Amino acid sequence: MQHYLSLKDIDSLPQWVEEAKSLKADPRQHKYLGQGKTICLLFFNNSLRTRLSTQKAAMNLGMEVIVMNFGSEGWALEYEDGTVMDQGTSEHIKEAAQVVAQYADIVAIRAFASLTDKKKDEAEVVMNGFKKYAGIPVVNMESSVGHPLQALADAITLSEQNTKKRPKVVLSWAPHPKALPHAVANSFVEMMKLQDADFVITHPKGYDLNPRLTKGIEVEYDQEKALEGADFVYVKNWSSYDDYGKVLSLDGNWTMTKKKLANAKFMHCLPVRRNIVVADEVLDSEDSLVIEQANNRTYSAQIVLKKLLESIK
Amino acid sequence: MQHYLSLKDIDSLPQWVEEAKSLKADPRQHKYLGQGKTICLLFFNNSLRTRLSTQKAAMNLGMEVIVMNFGSEGWALEYEDGTVMDQGTSEHIKEAAQVVAQYADIVAIRAFASLTDKKKDEAEVVMNGFKKYAGIPVVNMESSVGHPLQALADAITLSEQNTKKRPKVVLSWAPHPKALPHAVANSFVEMMKLQDADFVITHPKGYDLNPRLTKGIEVEYDQEKALEGADFVYVKNWSSYDDYGKVLSLDGNWTMTKKKLANAKFMHCLPVRRNIVVADEVLDSEDSLVIEQANNRTYSAQIVLKKLLESIK
Amino acid sequence: MQHYLSLKDIDSLPQWVEEAKSLKADPRQHKYLGQGKTICLLFFNNSLRTRLSTQKAAMNLGMEVIVMNFGSEGWALEYEDGTVMDQGTSEHIKEAAQVVAQYADIVAIRAFASLTDKKKDEAEVVMNGFKKYAGIPVVNMESSVGHPLQALADAITLSEQNTKKRPKVVLSWAPHPKALPHAVANSFVEMMKLQDADFVITHPKGYDLNPRLTKGIEVEYDQEKALEGADFVYVKNWSSYDDYGKVLSLDGNWTMTKKKLANAKFMHCLPVRRNIVVADEVLDSEDSLVIEQANNRTYSAQIVLKKLLESIK
Repeated sequence: MQHYLSLKDIDSLPQWVEEAKSLKADPRQHKYLGQGKTICLLFFNNSLRTRLSTQKAAMNLGMEVIVMNFGSEGWALEYEDGTVMDQGTSEHIKEAAQVVAQYADIVAIRAFASLTDKKKDEAEVVMNGFKKYAGIPVVNMESSVGHPLQALADAITLSEQNTKKRPKVVLSWAPHPKALPHAVANSFVEMMKLQDADFVITHPKGYDLNPRLTKGIEVEYDQEKALEGADFVYVKNWSSYDDYGKVLSLDGNWTMTKKKLANAKFMHCLPVRRNIVVADEVLDSEDSLVIEQANNRTYSAQIVLKKLLESIK
Repeated sequence: MQHYLSLKDIDSLPQWVEEAKSLKADPRQHKYLGQGKTICLLFFNNSLRTRLSTQKAAMNLGMEVIVMNFGSEGWALEYEDGTVMDQGTSEHIKEAAQVVAQYADIVAIRAFASLTDKKKDEAEVVMNGFKKYAGIPVVNMESSVGHPLQALADAITLSEQNTKKRPKVVLSWAPHPKALPHAVANSFVEMMKLQDADFVITHPKGYDLNPRLTKGIEVEYDQEKALEGADFVYVKNWSSYDDYGKVLSLDGNWTMTKKKLANAKFMHCLPVRRNIVVADEVLDSEDSLVIEQANNRTYSAQIVLKKLLESIK
Repeated sequence: MQHYLSLKDIDSLPQWVEEAKSLKADPRQHKYLGQGKTICLLFFNNSLRTRLSTQKAAMNLGMEVIVMNFGSEGWALEYEDGTVMDQGTSEHIKEAAQVVAQYADIVAIRAFASLTDKKKDEAEVVMNGFKKYAGIPVVNMESSVGHPLQALADAITLSEQNTKKRPKVVLSWAPHPKALPHAVANSFVEMMKLQDADFVITHPKGYDLNPRLTKGIEVEYDQEKALEGADFVYVKNWSSYDDYGKVLSLDGNWTMTKKKLANAKFMHCLPVRRNIVVADEVLDSEDSLVIEQANNRTYSAQIVLKKLLESIK
């Protein structure tokens, strides 16, 4: 059974990126591929880009789409084995996953990190529960530890925009008033490992990402130094991983500015808080790729769904 | 005007079951029947199976589907005649039902029992309001007193699984921490009246269902005795009918176990609380039919929509 | 770029009304026009008629429809320029509008008046933000100051029902327990300016609408006098414009009755509070046009979408 749960499910990133760009050139070229096939999008959390782009991608392939806000429209799920379910949960993931699979050919799921229980978040209980029990392909629309549809869209954007043999790409932390998950940063790091690029991560001390993911990657705590000669700067906030889910700094010196960006292109997954994460002058300039990244979400989702549809034909 | 409000709207249960099984064998065989026709699914309560399976059934028939969570997305409805509407309700069922009918060819509605006002629940004001005023076919996706799409799916499942001329079927109450409606039990009883089977209901004293429904049906308060020689055991919690909406017992002795089930098949409409209603060992065994029941919800809805579409052609 | 933000976006009302009536006669006649085109309906507020009729209209034209409750499913939007976004808003309208436009060919938006900040309401920040930044046609599904899809449906209804060369049409205020926006009344007034009719507005003192809109239109504070010889009476509550958003009167003498209506036809946009805004005897009589008005919402939306689709081909 094929799934799209992380970047590891891509056999060849360069090939997927090329195929996605071909879909972008003619989005409806496979409009009969998904005919008579149903995708169910289950949201346990809010969503704008993912909600719209995944629907759009599925419709481009001729699929029928069912969207459900599982949290507010369904039943509270139990994930533990052997529980005596006399408390708040009404349905076990074993049943829920199998049931959804009776009505859908592919299921896509968004379930954010709690940021309170690291072990549970890393177990990715929602995603893995569906993977284990549903028996149909599962797509990760952002889990507690990864956002591989975003990272694939970012790879498409990099491929379209890059003009160098080996560009320098920097992932730069930025301040944010709320504690945010690590999913986007994690998947961006995983994706960059598959790129032929100089890749540097920069953030204040205390904000190191999961060391199993960043092993072998240069981390530079001095943002200025890290940004030197950058071609692409991917800016993103995340909360502390060591002091799990905590906001340790709101330091405005980390906000991305025109001066810091210099000649690089600016990337961000959105939504973005203006003048906290990045200055207006950057977002409103030609150097911002954020709208193009959002646009590529459609083709990132579409290439994933195309591969999965082909695998279940 | 044809509707599907209760089992009474089925002219021949065996025939509908056979037609549903034929739809299951080739779900898209009538994919042009619903072309240009719209179904509107109105949810006043949460739903997983009903939400997904009814959408799927409608799409299998080529219909266009509009889903609306009436409670959170629409206006609070008034059901009383002659009210001076100066309180919490913004729109009368008279207008709402007629308005929905301007945009839909069929309307399907879920509106649970309050469990606080027996008389009002039995009046089925939402379902009957739409029936009275909409002027289009109305489908019951679980009302305050019945869940006929579930019962029809159960009939399909029984038909597929039964190997005896006259099987023994037991409806067995189970404990549950929350007060649940009688709708599923009621419709299962109504459906069993149309079956050639030995049918027994078992529950603790105080949990008798509406006597108008169970008239002539054997009720055995000793669960062990009731289960003797059973071929199918349908387990379900409901709150007290006499002491309306109350939880009178949480007695774990009524939980269904492998030993009690013996050689019977286990049935439940889901969602189910594990190790309260039924032990893991039952749900995780080959004897559980719950996923097959969920699967048959699609074909139960599909045969109903097919009949209604044919009636309005 | 064409939009449908107010009645001003109609080049010829009589011609649009005739085309809408032709669509009504055969709603699927242009079912291929919208093929491969996507409309995104964004709701910042509740909706019944607008939600269903706009979906229906888009499907009649063969469009793919994505519905999103932006308030509960998306991110809190910022509308001010230059804000340091360290408070409750997560995403700026600049990004949100451009992002939605990556996935949709047309965007339709509902965003009610706050009724607390007149200046902000009149700036129509949501609608104008999308107009300014999205770069795709924007449809007003009721903004803080107008409801032009409703007014266009009302024009269709008047055209179907009127038998006189120059009918008398009265817009009559009615009491309501809650403070309601001016949008429906405003757009009705704008629409009536384009009609060949005697048009009178009547309401208690203190309820004058925006004088820029009503300039040159007769306002009569005596309801009885205003209603004399009326052919059509459009009843609607709105809160005070001068004492912005306040309920100044609950005077039941303004409730529409059969006697007051005399030989006129009754119109209202719905939802309507019975026996507060209008007596049962009126709504339940042959003289009420409210269901026909609701029906015409489909063709009002459909002619608008048809014009926009033709403009972006």
